[in-house]
Amino acid sequence: MTLMADEIAEQPEAIARTLDVLLPERERLRRLVSGRRHVLVVARGSSDNAGVYGRYLLEVHAGRGAALAAPSLATHYAVRRDLSDSVVVSLSQSGHTAEIIETQQWAAACGARTIAVTNDPDSPLAAAADLALVTAAGVERAVPATKSYTAQLTALAVLADALGPPARTLEPDLRRVPGAISALLGPDADAEVETALAVLATAGDTLVTGRGLAYGTALETALKLEETCLQPVRGLSYADLRHGPMAIVDHELTAVLLAAGDGPMLEGMTELARELGARGARTVGIGGDRGFAAACATSVTGPDLPEAVAPIALIVPAQRIVEALARRRGLDPDRPRGLSKVTQTD
Amino acid sequence: MTLMADEIAEQPEAIARTLDVLLPERERLRRLVSGRRHVLVVARGSSDNAGVYGRYLLEVHAGRGAALAAPSLATHYAVRRDLSDSVVVSLSQSGHTAEIIETQQWAAACGARTIAVTNDPDSPLAAAADLALVTAAGVERAVPATKSYTAQLTALAVLADALGPPARTLEPDLRRVPGAISALLGPDADAEVETALAVLATAGDTLVTGRGLAYGTALETALKLEETCLQPVRGLSYADLRHGPMAIVDHELTAVLLAAGDGPMLEGMTELARELGARGARTVGIGGDRGFAAACATSVTGPDLPEAVAPIALIVPAQRIVEALARRRGLDPDRPRGLSKVTQTD
Repeated sequence: MTLMADEIAEQPEAIARTLDVLLPERERLRRLVSGRRHVLVVARGSSDNAGVYGRYLLEVHAGRGAALAAPSLATHYAVRRDLSDSVVVSLSQSGHTAEIIETQQWAAACGARTIAVTNDPDSPLAAAADLALVTAAGVERAVPATKSYTAQLTALAVLADALGPPARTLEPDLRRVPGAISALLGPDADAEVETALAVLATAGDTLVTGRGLAYGTALETALKLEETCLQPVRGLSYADLRHGPMAIVDHELTAVLLAAGDGPMLEGMTELARELGARGARTVGIGGDRGFAAACATSVTGPDLPEAVAPIALIVPAQRIVEALARRRGLDPDRPRGLSKVTQTD
Repeated sequence: MTLMADEIAEQPEAIARTLDVLLPERERLRRLVSGRRHVLVVARGSSDNAGVYGRYLLEVHAGRGAALAAPSLATHYAVRRDLSDSVVVSLSQSGHTAEIIETQQWAAACGARTIAVTNDPDSPLAAAADLALVTAAGVERAVPATKSYTAQLTALAVLADALGPPARTLEPDLRRVPGAISALLGPDADAEVETALAVLATAGDTLVTGRGLAYGTALETALKLEETCLQPVRGLSYADLRHGPMAIVDHELTAVLLAAGDGPMLEGMTELARELGARGARTVGIGGDRGFAAACATSVTGPDLPEAVAPIALIVPAQRIVEALARRRGLDPDRPRGLSKVTQTD
């Protein structure tokens, strides 16, 4: 067993622990954010992909204006902004990424309240924040983030729940996530993972796509395939695909599509799978419903969860495929070439 | 001559006309935006790449909070937001993209003031906006946007100038743009374009990168290479490259780097060019200064303009390379396969 495989398997417990620790923070979160209409998410790499989910969920579930920050505005352009109407959420698994710490400092100096999401309670990012949401993923030893990533998504869902309508709390659905992940780790899922990785192992030009709440999952899948399996991959939104690369889809393309099992994006994603297939691309679907699975040439079952929380589990089959594909290529998934646990942009 | 080549060559006039028409709108823009702290940019495709420039310039030059909207929040999730503190800037060259029109309507219903940037004064997008910035690019007949794209950048620079500090007006620099573009179209530039396209014509895995104000130019270059030359290309931010694909850079990669001739990003982009080269990648630099050019294996001169307005001209050498590369491949740059002038997402 690789460390990465172990850590993928630990996710049901990691998420359950994180929920136990963070759900009680909702009242403090509500007080901290009170009167502030805008949320700015600061992150890089896998954390940035988590931020894409958080951004959509904060908008869709909590009706907040949410956007991803460009850290260079703080670190290179030294922009002066009035952030007195904003909360800045900084995501860093290690809590030690200098650029993220610096951007959080900048935000506070501009008047923002600050929330840090990190897996290390003793990190400088946590220490400097007004409120630290410390995930309980446990120590992560493999370089590719798995359980620390899904714990970040969990923290963002707790934040969205705190700011959303009490009558439609996400808590019952969040409590179902650990069980849904366990189902994706069981022996029933092995054959599907094996089939999908066989397709990806022989893929040339590869792209990964998703839309809305599951868009971040597509970006994270692309990043993991690239950094762990050393496969050049494009992660593209549904719209970006339609507006550009769709033109050059042919039989040389392998397309991985990620979709939740319900929600307003499912119909479009199913239609996209059909269209990509009709143009000759090899399609690998992860998640969705039966219609989506039928529209994809190869399909991997996703979590039985509503769209709002599905991304926390939807990444799990992709993680399994990436881990197995790296091993099949003779690579060490725990220590991908050229990567370190804490990446500094500069 | 292709239509695309003609329209690339028309850009000095198109930009000069657009400045003449739009600079006098600054007072109306200031009044419309008065008291509204946030700008939300709505766009897809090439217009989205223009929006990336607008977003950075509004932050850097005008100190406004600026973000790119996710139109699906309006069109698919029917999110209810309070946008009474926001101005929404909708970009569509045709002014007929249904998704953008619908998102502008949604924004107005949420309380936003609306600005449309379009090349068609009679379009539904212009008609429905509180204020229409109608670019004067003239009719664009080739499918790939060239002069309509740089005219959009010009409109966004005028908006940023209207909202920025009067003491540091961009007007003198904007007036230099048409001349700077003319210099990039002259015979002196032909040999460099020819050399760069020879490199790209034999490229396998290709990525395009840039940072800050020039990041949108990198995305636009990638999109044009992909849709016009049918070359699978990844457009990546500097940070995304450092956090992932950097790990797999080797001699099979061709990297195109775009940089303005000055500004806080130039040093990092120069270092990146050196590092990519050291890892064996073939590097093609567009723009930058002498140090940047020396750090790239192949280099194409960019505009002699300050960073704030450089992107309006920096795309021009890339457009020339794309147009010539398409022809060299036996493709018709005016009518790329599978693309239409007005793309609808769905």
